[in-house]
Amino acid sequence: MKVHNFSAGPSILPKEVLQESAKSTLQLKNIGMSILEISHRSIDFLNIINEAKTLTKELLDIPNTHEVLFLQGGASLQFYMSALNFCGKHKCSGFLDTGIWAKKAINEAKKVSKTIKIGSSSDKNYSYIPKNISFNEDFDYIHLTSNNTIYGTQIHSFDFINKHIKTEKLICDMSSDIFSRRIDIKNFDLIYAGAQKNLGPAGTTLIIIKKDSLTNKEDRPTYLDYRTHINKESLFNTPPVFSIYVSLLTLRWINKNGGIINIEKKNIEKSNALYNEIDRNSLFFGLVEKDDRSIMNATFDLYDQNLKRKFEELCNKERISGINGHRTTGGFRASMYNALEKESVNKLIEVMQTLENKNKK
Amino acid sequence: MKVHNFSAGPSILPKEVLQESAKSTLQLKNIGMSILEISHRSIDFLNIINEAKTLTKELLDIPNTHEVLFLQGGASLQFYMSALNFCGKHKCSGFLDTGIWAKKAINEAKKVSKTIKIGSSSDKNYSYIPKNISFNEDFDYIHLTSNNTIYGTQIHSFDFINKHIKTEKLICDMSSDIFSRRIDIKNFDLIYAGAQKNLGPAGTTLIIIKKDSLTNKEDRPTYLDYRTHINKESLFNTPPVFSIYVSLLTLRWINKNGGIINIEKKNIEKSNALYNEIDRNSLFFGLVEKDDRSIMNATFDLYDQNLKRKFEELCNKERISGINGHRTTGGFRASMYNALEKESVNKLIEVMQTLENKNKK
Repeated sequence: MKVHNFSAGPSILPKEVLQESAKSTLQLKNIGMSILEISHRSIDFLNIINEAKTLTKELLDIPNTHEVLFLQGGASLQFYMSALNFCGKHKCSGFLDTGIWAKKAINEAKKVSKTIKIGSSSDKNYSYIPKNISFNEDFDYIHLTSNNTIYGTQIHSFDFINKHIKTEKLICDMSSDIFSRRIDIKNFDLIYAGAQKNLGPAGTTLIIIKKDSLTNKEDRPTYLDYRTHINKESLFNTPPVFSIYVSLLTLRWINKNGGIINIEKKNIEKSNALYNEIDRNSLFFGLVEKDDRSIMNATFDLYDQNLKRKFEELCNKERISGINGHRTTGGFRASMYNALEKESVNKLIEVMQTLENKNKK
Repeated sequence: MKVHNFSAGPSILPKEVLQESAKSTLQLKNIGMSILEISHRSIDFLNIINEAKTLTKELLDIPNTHEVLFLQGGASLQFYMSALNFCGKHKCSGFLDTGIWAKKAINEAKKVSKTIKIGSSSDKNYSYIPKNISFNEDFDYIHLTSNNTIYGTQIHSFDFINKHIKTEKLICDMSSDIFSRRIDIKNFDLIYAGAQKNLGPAGTTLIIIKKDSLTNKEDRPTYLDYRTHINKESLFNTPPVFSIYVSLLTLRWINKNGGIINIEKKNIEKSNALYNEIDRNSLFFGLVEKDDRSIMNATFDLYDQNLKRKFEELCNKERISGINGHRTTGGFRASMYNALEKESVNKLIEVMQTLENKNKK
């Protein structure tokens, strides 16, 4: 019986990606060796990483001014690394505080420079994206988190930043919504994203960086300097070969399925269907402001907490997995990453309706 | 036809490890999800990482004073991270310069403190381990590279360090020989090792750290502070789930095959066989001093460079893969990690003998 995997990440991957990954774990093409056994300097791996970079550039329409890197350490290492590399003459960086991940980024940046919160939704447990912001400070960069998995909020348009803030550089943690929708890459100097949502398994971190944005000439730890990896084309040291390989397979899958435009369309359809049910169903309510609802992670709860166990039992019966909310928000969270099929969303809606029918007043 | 994989790393893994990895890439046990899709907070993954830690402790006989971590970024990130965490009151660290990897470690440590080379074999292209060392400096720590893949040298006994140097702490990069032989862990404050030789696929870095060795109270970047990972038991952020899982399978394989004592015995047998042939065969010579020969990576060359192509052709015909020497040393390098079977070493010896028979003077 099929599992409907709504896990927030690491999360569901396309079935054909898993099948091809399994095959290559036994033997890559006809070379007599597993993808786990080949040298990262071999022609086989060079072809893999080069195709992964090219496909990333094509799918996201990345201009030539930007480079694509595959590193390690996740967004958690990027919090510090981005600050270290982008701290400039103003010694001041601005952050949009949209929750735990933004706060973690702020804490690491504090070790490098002054930080200012240009906006925060902490007053309402991060249930919205603060947009009325205006500052006269000169910032080295502004840092955003495009999608907030824990709360289920998402920045749908980035226009409000450039209009009201004096900054030359824009950094965005897109860990949980990269490849889920169209993004105008040229507006960003640095985008980073752990692979484990829409790209591949945990173990690699995608970096999209504007090549001429690193003007600072400071001597930095070699691994933590983006210039190292730009110069060595992500092969400064042994890269996470398998994670990059599975990412390539996922990129091929996105490409074959009509690219980002089509993926975005499907994601909007899936999330609309679930949000419509949350709003329609008399037992449930959404946890965040409607304008800022994430197309990736829908958060919701029951009016009557006494129904919680019943709902969970119904979900278990239908093998709906991973919909418990984060411990800081409670309630439920349905993560609908690219590889989650509409059928799984429909199943969840069905269960919500069953609960309603059994508990109508 | 079987490939004899002598690659220096990423390198050969046991066949049954690859088979089980492939199975779990399709579906982990009977949970209906792939190992690539499960949450790192799920009970399934917690069982995996805990068993991997326990088996590491058992196999290497690690005392309770030490902790085992699985991080990311490879030895290259450890070069800086170890210096950052272990720099102490003397602001001076000592390094045994045994080649490129040691020099890279020195370069990163220079960003943190004064560094002194307590010995170097650069005078003879790193073809031996410098052992006559004596210094009166007070060091925060001494840093060693136990096995030097590029040159084929290995530190067989660590006694010479403690006898002649005043240091309270000992750090060792064991990337290419951990799990290949018995090591007295209690003598080390920090051991680090990229997984991609004897442990698993590229993508995770094993850390063995003495818990009370970090006395320095400085505020460090969170990811780069070992205390973060000790406190969070390697789950500070999303770990490289798959790499840790495959490492666990390899640890089970080592355990099933008689543990480190037996693995060491086999490694000595394999390397003895090859070194005996190098010394016996009139066409070949070894590149390093006999006492310092590595049981993992044997480096050798032909007296007559005109035979190089013939030898390579014979190797290709027998599907012997990955024996070209590093570009800085030339010649040949046969890496004989744990998973390489004696049969493959025998095949290489056979080819060396065939070459000799065809080219006897």
